[in-house]
Amino acid sequence: MATTNRQIHLVSRPSGEATVDNFRLVEALVGEPNEGQVLVRIHYLSLDPYMRGRMNDAKSYAQPQALNQVMQGGTVGEVVASKHPNYRAGDTVAGMGGWQQYAMVDGSMPGLLRKVDATHIPLSAYLGAVGMPGVTAWYGLMKICQPKAGQTLVVSAASGAVGSAVGQLAKTRGCRAVGIAGGIDKCRYVTQELGFDACVDYKAHRDSKSLYQALKEATPDGVDGCFENVGGVVLDATLARMNAFGRIALCGMISGYDGEPIPLQQPQLILQSRLTVEGFIVSEHMDVWPEALKELGTLVATGKLKYRETIAEGIEAAPQAFLGLLKGRNFGKQLVRLA
Amino acid sequence: MATTNRQIHLVSRPSGEATVDNFRLVEALVGEPNEGQVLVRIHYLSLDPYMRGRMNDAKSYAQPQALNQVMQGGTVGEVVASKHPNYRAGDTVAGMGGWQQYAMVDGSMPGLLRKVDATHIPLSAYLGAVGMPGVTAWYGLMKICQPKAGQTLVVSAASGAVGSAVGQLAKTRGCRAVGIAGGIDKCRYVTQELGFDACVDYKAHRDSKSLYQALKEATPDGVDGCFENVGGVVLDATLARMNAFGRIALCGMISGYDGEPIPLQQPQLILQSRLTVEGFIVSEHMDVWPEALKELGTLVATGKLKYRETIAEGIEAAPQAFLGLLKGRNFGKQLVRLA
Repeated sequence: MATTNRQIHLVSRPSGEATVDNFRLVEALVGEPNEGQVLVRIHYLSLDPYMRGRMNDAKSYAQPQALNQVMQGGTVGEVVASKHPNYRAGDTVAGMGGWQQYAMVDGSMPGLLRKVDATHIPLSAYLGAVGMPGVTAWYGLMKICQPKAGQTLVVSAASGAVGSAVGQLAKTRGCRAVGIAGGIDKCRYVTQELGFDACVDYKAHRDSKSLYQALKEATPDGVDGCFENVGGVVLDATLARMNAFGRIALCGMISGYDGEPIPLQQPQLILQSRLTVEGFIVSEHMDVWPEALKELGTLVATGKLKYRETIAEGIEAAPQAFLGLLKGRNFGKQLVRLA
Repeated sequence: MATTNRQIHLVSRPSGEATVDNFRLVEALVGEPNEGQVLVRIHYLSLDPYMRGRMNDAKSYAQPQALNQVMQGGTVGEVVASKHPNYRAGDTVAGMGGWQQYAMVDGSMPGLLRKVDATHIPLSAYLGAVGMPGVTAWYGLMKICQPKAGQTLVVSAASGAVGSAVGQLAKTRGCRAVGIAGGIDKCRYVTQELGFDACVDYKAHRDSKSLYQALKEATPDGVDGCFENVGGVVLDATLARMNAFGRIALCGMISGYDGEPIPLQQPQLILQSRLTVEGFIVSEHMDVWPEALKELGTLVATGKLKYRETIAEGIEAAPQAFLGLLKGRNFGKQLVRLA
């Protein structure tokens, strides 16, 4: 079975903005699994903002993505051949297959592969609302923001895979959920389809005073919890609306991913309002995944947690789709369909 | 008993730097206590950086200091007359007597007055190591930084009333204690007399790269806990040295008290290093005071917690001494002796 496996490799690191030239399409051959291995045909590849950070060589929380290797990333797919007792052909699985059509996986390495139920929940949801983005939303909201009924919760990148889950989960806890998103369409989606109480269009407020004023109108009682995906002027505005003892979960600062300075203008507000600010990476909190996935799966299966996907077609489309994600051109979870 | 009571009032709010013109010396008469009142002759007045914040009218955590009223502040002294059953003439007491020679206090208001033992511990220590500054150090270190043996703890304004206690308490927990202070004399005091492991003289490093380099040399294993009193470039340097899962207690940001911008240059480090940053005010955590005061009192009485005082003489010297404190001209706890 000498099937061709098309892959995307990282071949250079960006200086400033990432470009398609940092990637290369490579063809390889798929072999047969050895003892303990599982061969997965990937149906969907997940594209996520954190991948931009791993393209750099700088000291960061994750190991940098190695050059001239398959880009790492979350995937869902179907087992096509297995020499591991826990998996057999036809199983639907989620894992870290990377940017390629086929992945050969060690079935015994914890976290690399797990079977998922694709009868009640669409397979692609395991890369979004019932996967890493959903658990990210759940952890930052529940464990850091610690929402209480009647409080106001603000989340940036509100129409995205993480942000949309944050706001809907906050609503289940009785909070006022306020989103920040880029553009009228995204804001309308956030309020009308996802049920947020308000959404501020940051693209309509290019200076920080105007953005602050709009956020103030959307948060008449101030802000108790902030789930931050963007940073920069968006975080500055939210910080200035925080109530005493407010809590900020720092999940992403996409506004600074190309290396531009993103100073926090008024850090003294952390002191004056006695705030707690906490950065986190969901992969370091594996203990909460079962509880989080259980709630997220139930909410998705019962239609109470909605999400949207932007799907690029074919492995060769992955680099361009990824660069679009960094510019906010996606709408909801960005995926690449491979089969 | 028509004794004259000399007081310092706040008569105007600073625009930018505070000046002596913001204060006025006022004479009043001392009356007899009514039922429930206690008349205290103040021996020492405490001068503290937080008072600068209260001189502004801006929204902050504390109510602004009222104009044309006695400046509020912590004091220790002796009861000279009492119509409250819990106090009698001769009792040594600590309380919030304000910038004046005599204070008439409601003996029943919790927190306004408490008897203190001046036989084993010098009376003035209740304004420093065994008072609000000591408990501030204790709370921020124990409850926010949560030091563990072998970790590195950095504290700014290290020779001050709070900072000196932070480092010495960190040593009792088996930490490497590193101070940041202004000038060779203060740094020598911090290491040689207080027993810190190292001290960085920020006055010898006027640009941020140089300061960072000096701090790097003093913290070869990185920084696990940061107790921040200063903010600005000092905080930027420490942030860049923080280890994963480090904890930062934001106690003061004296570098911005005159309203100058003090942006945090690299807030993304909070995310990349998964830090927790928490602002606090010790008066909102009264539940820890008994435990903290017990440890601090024992350490002072047994000579294990050292401190230094800068003492100005006479109520009329208070404004100038306070302005000097804001410039870092004091050495250790700044007091004014009134009797």
